Order: sequence, then C-alpha cells, then structure tokens
Amino acid sequence: MSSHQTGLRFVKGHGTQNDFVVLADPAAELALDTEMVAALCDRQRGIGADGLLRVARTGALVERGVLAALPDGVAADDWFMDYRNGDGSIAEMCGNGVRVFAHFVRATGLTATDAFTVGSRAGARPVIIHHFDDVHAEVTVEMGVARLDGTSVVRIGDDVYPGAKVDVGNPHLACVVADLTADELAAVDFAAGVVIEPGDFPNGANVELLTPPVEDVDGRLYARMRVFERGVGETRSCGTGLVAATRAALDARGQDTGELRIGIPGGEVTVTIRPDGSTLRGPSMLVADGVLRPGWDR
Amino acid sequence: MSSHQTGLRFVKGHGTQNDFVVLADPAAELALDTEMVAALCDRQRGIGADGLLRVARTGALVERGVLAALPDGVAADDWFMDYRNGDGSIAEMCGNGVRVFAHFVRATGLTATDAFTVGSRAGARPVIIHHFDDVHAEVTVEMGVARLDGTSVVRIGDDVYPGAKVDVGNPHLACVVADLTADELAAVDFAAGVVIEPGDFPNGANVELLTPPVEDVDGRLYARMRVFERGVGETRSCGTGLVAATRAALDARGQDTGELRIGIPGGEVTVTIRPDGSTLRGPSMLVADGVLRPGWDR
Repeated sequence: MSSHQTGLRFVKGHGTQNDFVVLADPAAELALDTEMVAALCDRQRGIGADGLLRVARTGALVERGVLAALPDGVAADDWFMDYRNGDGSIAEMCGNGVRVFAHFVRATGLTATDAFTVGSRAGARPVIIHHFDDVHAEVTVEMGVARLDGTSVVRIGDDVYPGAKVDVGNPHLACVVADLTADELAAVDFAAGVVIEPGDFPNGANVELLTPPVEDVDGRLYARMRVFERGVGETRSCGTGLVAATRAALDARGQDTGELRIGIPGGEVTVTIRPDGSTLRGPSMLVADGVLRPGWDR
Repeated sequence: MSSHQTGLRFVKGHGTQNDFVVLADPAAELALDTEMVAALCDRQRGIGADGLLRVARTGALVERGVLAALPDGVAADDWFMDYRNGDGSIAEMCGNGVRVFAHFVRATGLTATDAFTVGSRAGARPVIIHHFDDVHAEVTVEMGVARLDGTSVVRIGDDVYPGAKVDVGNPHLACVVADLTADELAAVDFAAGVVIEPGDFPNGANVELLTPPVEDVDGRLYARMRVFERGVGETRSCGTGLVAATRAALDARGQDTGELRIGIPGGEVTVTIRPDGSTLRGPSMLVADGVLRPGWDR
C-alpha cells in the first residue's frame, strides 16, 4: 500500500499538546520512508505533528523486517508503537505518544481491556486506561527505569546549565536550575541555540530545564518544566523528558523514589519513580479523523 | 450548528505553503468565535493552520449579520471567503487563501465554471482556474489596485529597513533591500523582533523583505522574498504581500506596471501589476479531508 494509490486514513491527537498523527496499520503494510513521514508531519505541506505513531501488530513488524525481533516482554500480538520524529527519523520511545497510542487502541476497539502492553523499541510499556471516550482519556504508562548516568552541561545562548544525564530508553540531559523562577523559565530563549557538551551524547539528547520542586499545600511536590527535543526543537511536552526530569529533581533532594507533579506548556502530568521503574500519568486527546488525498505529497 | 454537537468537516490545503483549514458552510450556520478558530488553527491542540477559510454564500452571511451588506461587486449567490487569521481575528483578504478557496469551490463542484467571482471583505476578487484536480490547481486571482502610500521603516533586531507603505486591501510595509543577496535574506532573524515605526500603521501591517529584482535569461524579472504577517509571525508565503512587494519593487525601478516572478520559502508565484489592478498566479493544493471529533476543543 502506498499513500499515492489510496487515501491514507489518519487520526490527529495530542498528549499535553505533544501532538501526533496516528496511522492504524495492523498488518504493517505501509512503507514509512523518511521523506513521506517528514512531509506528513510538515505543518504547512502536510497535516503537521511533532511525530507519527504507526499502530501495528508487533509480529507483523517482525515479519516485514521493520523490527529484527520481538522486543523483550512484547508478544507477537501486542500492539507496537512504531514512533517517528517529525523529521522522519526513528525514535526509541515517546511517553506522551504512548498515552495517545493506548487511547487510540482502546477507543478504536483494537483491544477490549483497560490494562495492556504496548510494544516499543525501548521494550514493553504496560499501560492503564483510567477512563476514556472517543476524545478524552487519562492514561498511566509504565516508563521503565530512569537511570542516572553522570552529568553534562548545555549551553543555551550565552547561558550554561549543568544537568544530570538520564537514560529512559532514550537519552536526556535534565537540568534542575537552582533558584530558577517560573517567569525566568518562560523567558529562556531556545532560539538562541541549544548546544550540548560535545561528546557526552553520541546520538544527541533531549534537554529539560526545570524549576526546583516545591511542596504545594497538600505536601505534594510540584515543578515547572520546558523541553527541547532533538530533531524537533521545543515542544509543549515530552513524556520521557518528564520522567528524566523527575528522576533528576528527586535525586537533587536526596530521594531515589517519589512523586512529582509537573506543569509544562501543554498541561500537567504526574510522574512516580519506584526502585524498579517509573510511571507517567496524564491526559490524551483524539481531535480529528482524516484521510489524505491521493497525490497530496507531490 | 456547533462543533460541540456534530463532527465538523474540514479540508486542509495550502497555497505555496501558506496553509488553511477550509470549512464548507454554504448557509453560514457556523458560529465562528475567536476562541474556537484559534483552537482549530493551533497546531498542537487543533488541526493547525496559518488561517481559516469559511466558504459561505455572500447573501447568507449578510442574512446572518456576519456582513453588514453585500461588498461592492459581489452578488448574493457569489461564494464569500470569510477569512480568519490563526489567532482567530478577522482579516480583510489573503491572496494565497483565495487560490485555495477557489480551488476548493471548483473541485468540490460548488461552481461549474473556471472563471468566477470570490467575495472578500476587501471586495470582489475574480479568479481564473487554469487547471485543477482534487489535489492540485493553478489559479490566477485578481488582487485589485496596490496603492503606494508613502514610506515607513521597520526594525528587525538591530537592523532598520526602509520600505514602501502599500495598501492591497490590507496594509503592508514592503522593503526592497538594496544589494541584499538571497543568502543574506535567508539569514534575517525575525525572532529578534519585528517593530514597525510607531503610528504609521494604526492596525499593524505585514512586513515584506525582498531582494532587488534581476532579469533572468528570458528577460523576466525575478526576486526572492520573506514575509512576516501580523498576528501570525513568519509564514512561507503571503498573497497580498507578494502583490505589495511587486508594486514596491517595480516602483523602485521607475515602473508603474509590469510582471515579477517571486521565489518565497513556500514556492513560486507570478504577480502582474496593471494600471487598474493586479493579478497573482500560483499553485493550490488540497491535502486532506477530515472531521473534528465532537468535544475536541474541551
């Protein structure tokens, strides 16, 4: 099947305003080349999205050679989130994407249960659908272990921010900035250039800046965050970045585990860090259904 | 009718990568409030577009009170382009929008002729469809008189650019920058801030920067251009801006009339200036059909 011959169906959705084009492709029949994905995610020429989520049976992707083998903990008939960045490149994982993916799978009737496993290039990602309808859902995603891996620095314009290197299936530099206020965070100018210390991340990294967590009236920790994603630029939310940021923020307080509410430009989520893993809980929205006109990309 | 109760149908299209959400609403039944249009044009929360084109009978808009009266030269059963900027505000005209609008009207079968009149808040806009299918079209739009109206200056970052004030139904500051190369034009940093001389444009203006026209091997004038639209930011093309720029560029050569090919980030168009008016010829593309899920904006 090619988008040239038939009208390709899609859904547009977002998780805390990290937005996606979702393609249902159970048998993995679509040829998702880099150029086509980039055109589809181009906001003027295509539909526009931060990334693309292909929904396919894991076994079908193995049969088609898209995956070399079943990832650990993922069964052949589990749904696999074949994630692509907006520039068409492949990414291991996207935490907001998993919520939208799980919402789509559940609301479309591709599964009949509220707890199931989503496959990803970073491994199995169990999800829990707390509630859903065709438009809204609240989803918790198991994000796995967030592993601290030393420190690095990023230069943004003329300012240098030290941070923690965190691996959440993909690489992050999470910077808890001492004394940073929410207003100062909002004023940081990513357009001035974001340059990570050369050599520290051979494949690049996403960069998170966050305010030091403070306790709200209920004694829950709360912080504000912004994120700059490799291959994309600033986005209003990044799921793995939220987990990386929580790991770093708790570590800075001497905590190995705990919970953090995080306000991001796109909304609010809650991250929980356990000794053996982490979860990300937040909203998902499915906004529209569409079909591409054959020849749209020529 | 409200988008809350039924699934609102839309088409996404673009003219030289100036992109639009098109809503067919012949009887003008939709309540297009600012907030809803802004949400729909929001690239993460909605569909995403530079602007919205409502397709309605001019007479129906008058009956509903959206228009106070039929604009000069526009009949009650002419199709009216009810244009909204991406922030939800009303705009008089959009030249790339008219091409996409006319393409939509012709390809959808709302008219059966290749030459017809499109109504706009800036008056009647005759169009010619040179060829079309469901995805591609080439359209010439009558843009009316581009009127020179003195000079002004714009500051972009630390640089000051003098330019011509041009009225094309909406206000422009068109700056033909002496000795500017295509590479230098590409390097101009709109993010450094675009500030027009205070007082010169009470309602703001779009700003065009262009290279001095040069003759190609066929003796045709060619220039490169970038545009910064009020209420939107930089876009890859702006139809009225192309006409304003051509008027200013010809004037700088001592010409009141003539033709200019212009390369913009989104493609290429040809503008012709006559004593009594102007035309803009360029491509249109209709990319996808969609339907919003009821409740998408809550």
